Amino acid sequence: MEINPLRIKKLGIDTHQQPIVYIRSDCPLCRSEGFNALSRLRLTCENTSIIATLNVVSTDSILKVNQVGVSNIAAELLEVCNGDVVTLSHPKPLQSLGYLRSKIYGQRLNAQGMKSIVDDIAADRYADVQLAAFITACVDKGLDTEEVGLLTRAMTEVGERLSWEDKIIVDKHCVGGLPGNRTSPIIVAIVAACGLTMPKTSSRAITSPAGTADCMEVLAPVSLDLDQMKSVIEKEGACIVWGGSVNLSPADDALIRVERALDLDSEGQLVASVLSKKLAAGSSHVVIDIPVGPTAKVRDQDMADRLSAQLRDVGRSLGLQVDIVLSDGSQPVGYGIGPALEAEDVLAVLSNDSGAPLDLRMRALQLAGRLLETAGVCELGKGYAKAEAVLNTGLAYKKFIAICEAQGGFSLPPAAEYSHPVFAERDGLVTHIDNRILARLAKFAGAPAAKSAGIKILVHLGEKVEKETLLFTLYSESVGELNYALDYMRASEGAVVVGNERV
Amino acid sequence: MEINPLRIKKLGIDTHQQPIVYIRSDCPLCRSEGFNALSRLRLTCENTSIIATLNVVSTDSILKVNQVGVSNIAAELLEVCNGDVVTLSHPKPLQSLGYLRSKIYGQRLNAQGMKSIVDDIAADRYADVQLAAFITACVDKGLDTEEVGLLTRAMTEVGERLSWEDKIIVDKHCVGGLPGNRTSPIIVAIVAACGLTMPKTSSRAITSPAGTADCMEVLAPVSLDLDQMKSVIEKEGACIVWGGSVNLSPADDALIRVERALDLDSEGQLVASVLSKKLAAGSSHVVIDIPVGPTAKVRDQDMADRLSAQLRDVGRSLGLQVDIVLSDGSQPVGYGIGPALEAEDVLAVLSNDSGAPLDLRMRALQLAGRLLETAGVCELGKGYAKAEAVLNTGLAYKKFIAICEAQGGFSLPPAAEYSHPVFAERDGLVTHIDNRILARLAKFAGAPAAKSAGIKILVHLGEKVEKETLLFTLYSESVGELNYALDYMRASEGAVVVGNERV
Repeated sequence: MEINPLRIKKLGIDTHQQPIVYIRSDCPLCRSEGFNALSRLRLTCENTSIIATLNVVSTDSILKVNQVGVSNIAAELLEVCNGDVVTLSHPKPLQSLGYLRSKIYGQRLNAQGMKSIVDDIAADRYADVQLAAFITACVDKGLDTEEVGLLTRAMTEVGERLSWEDKIIVDKHCVGGLPGNRTSPIIVAIVAACGLTMPKTSSRAITSPAGTADCMEVLAPVSLDLDQMKSVIEKEGACIVWGGSVNLSPADDALIRVERALDLDSEGQLVASVLSKKLAAGSSHVVIDIPVGPTAKVRDQDMADRLSAQLRDVGRSLGLQVDIVLSDGSQPVGYGIGPALEAEDVLAVLSNDSGAPLDLRMRALQLAGRLLETAGVCELGKGYAKAEAVLNTGLAYKKFIAICEAQGGFSLPPAAEYSHPVFAERDGLVTHIDNRILARLAKFAGAPAAKSAGIKILVHLGEKVEKETLLFTLYSESVGELNYALDYMRASEGAVVVGNERV
Repeated sequence: MEINPLRIKKLGIDTHQQPIVYIRSDCPLCRSEGFNALSRLRLTCENTSIIATLNVVSTDSILKVNQVGVSNIAAELLEVCNGDVVTLSHPKPLQSLGYLRSKIYGQRLNAQGMKSIVDDIAADRYADVQLAAFITACVDKGLDTEEVGLLTRAMTEVGERLSWEDKIIVDKHCVGGLPGNRTSPIIVAIVAACGLTMPKTSSRAITSPAGTADCMEVLAPVSLDLDQMKSVIEKEGACIVWGGSVNLSPADDALIRVERALDLDSEGQLVASVLSKKLAAGSSHVVIDIPVGPTAKVRDQDMADRLSAQLRDVGRSLGLQVDIVLSDGSQPVGYGIGPALEAEDVLAVLSNDSGAPLDLRMRALQLAGRLLETAGVCELGKGYAKAEAVLNTGLAYKKFIAICEAQGGFSLPPAAEYSHPVFAERDGLVTHIDNRILARLAKFAGAPAAKSAGIKILVHLGEKVEKETLLFTLYSESVGELNYALDYMRASEGAVVVGNERV
């Protein structure tokens, strides 16, 4: 029996990173191979193969009988055009699923098991439900420190790795959870102005209204490939690019996508995610900022100590010097929450604007100072002053603009079309600011996908306000999103509480 | 600004139970509401609303700009036709996700938390990744006995519940893992012939080559709705139908689908799945068969004891008398593995065929006897003989055919088009039969989707064979599947081992 070859049809459907293949239920091959909906199957075009989840198509409205539909990511991974010949087959069962199963049942993973899982994740061979199971099984006590080390190493090895001529390569990371804490662009500018090499890759938001990459993107292109990133660093000594596009930790990208859908951000995954990217970027010295506060991601000293120890231990075991700074996580930093609003704060600090948020400035100087000390640019205890001098003289601003230009061109942050001011309903003191509610509000308003959406908060804890004082303003790019945020605000009291005394 | 109404287009895409909605990226509403790929959103048509996962469509090949595409399950839940007007909005955050999160972090769930999760699952409000996270978090020690009771109660309450005039309603369940152990149709026929009421609902395969519903379906229709099921029982006192179509445990159906994709089958979920359906069916007395063997689902006495205790305890707390029978799980039961091949064995036993598998007959008689004793039809110790008499006289066969006719008509099992015999390569004794490898072989050959696919195994443990003795035969409905099974067989030694002495 002669079977006509199956041909690709790109359906233009965005299924994120999970490749989906669409086949007619009456396609001869579907019959003869016994495929059915949600099967996993192998697609091969010339020399490229991928594993995709099958959706069976029961009518002829979107596919002809000899056509195989592919989602955007499937088409991209296969590097195919419409009409290309494709063959389908049953994939071999993934060896790593045995390891995944043992982890779900609470057993420890060895190096081989961890590597096997991470390799399959990085190659997009896991279905979303399998990623969700792995993430869930690794939450909390799911991974011990040694396993986190194995996960970190496996995630580092599976992606690209950079190497540099300098022996000292610095980097900085913040574990997040504190809205508006956008110190990275300022720190990069300061330490690069002092001659250090800092290949900064940043992530997009996981569960927050903006990641550094989201914020930086409103000021300059961040989706650089590895060669472009290298040339920026050769020219300016530093960069601030999106980690996802330089492929330093492809497994992490897949994990983060599902963590975001689950609204989970586990400790072990966090350590592995942070350190694997620093290692892959070729860093030798890293300062990690851990904001601690009742509504920050790290809520108390116990959790901060546990996380610090794990970051240091795992770093040491992999040859990376990790320096921890615990910072105040009781309230947002700066005024803006959301990509463009945070970018405005960054620019204000860098340009020594008189209205620049002082808290953001001081945090950036502290962390930059620590990096300058760690890297031996100045003596212990003199880093802050050195960083401040570089900022005050305008050298840091100049360096920042140069980096933006090297990345493709500097631009000013966009402004939002819609806004809604929220006023104090009484005289009193600001007794409580809830980071989580503010972050959710900013997200409901559209951040980070809508760049100019978010919140501008003008008051601080303990501040005296009068009735009708502006507490914060909501910004959005659409009426629907603004209303959604307002609905949420009405349903959840306590984003900013004005009372008689500080709680 | 006037916005044209959005209209439904059924795309005919089978995404199983996860509703997917497809929207053009340039659709005005998509812009104004800030939706992006993998958002969860609410679709409303007239008075019906569902929550679906969004796939953004970037070209105009499958949708016009004012069209909203829906997958099969989304169309079914919404009860829509092409062209119906649909409105889209952001869904309210699910309250139950807070409980899910606490379970993932190892906290106990209370009744309210469990009910909240199960209600959302039953209403198809969970994305597949959220189902996967819940299943993973509940594996092994993830649920204690009290939580399993809460889960069982919540799963019972969320679906339909049957009630009967008789006080004693019997039922039977096998926890599975033993290929070919298809006693249910035989037991139902025997106890119904003795005048007992047995509203048997069966499941389709989770990780095995056939469930009782898959097997029974080759003999009679099993996808009956609740009214049809009731009328069969009014007429014949018993039925053997697929539980999924009578909606006795809608949450279980969603969980089983993802458990299957993950190849997981956890203890707590198993207990809740089994007992919730018995409770919903209105049963008062249940006999549960637990096959124990090194390659069965329950591998040792410890696990059997733990599972028995949990089934009894949870049953008692919910007013259900649970009687456990531990049986030999060291080798397959009967000759057939796969829907049609197992159905042949069932018919052979019921019709007292001289070639009927004796092990299947004896197991069915033992369990039927236990039910007859438990229900007070005969004295303790006399159940087996009573069951045997009913089988021998042909009353059970007559009752079985009557039940099949009442369900829509009896038919004979289909035969497979392709087969491949496997012979002994030496003289010796059958020293090992691996249930897991045999089950996988049958699945790779196409079972249970391909009804006549599977394995017919003719030898038993300890049996003396000669070189070239037929050990088993592989059956399939397609060349592709047969080859896939053969590939797997070559790669994994030890489905049936012929050696010098029994291990």
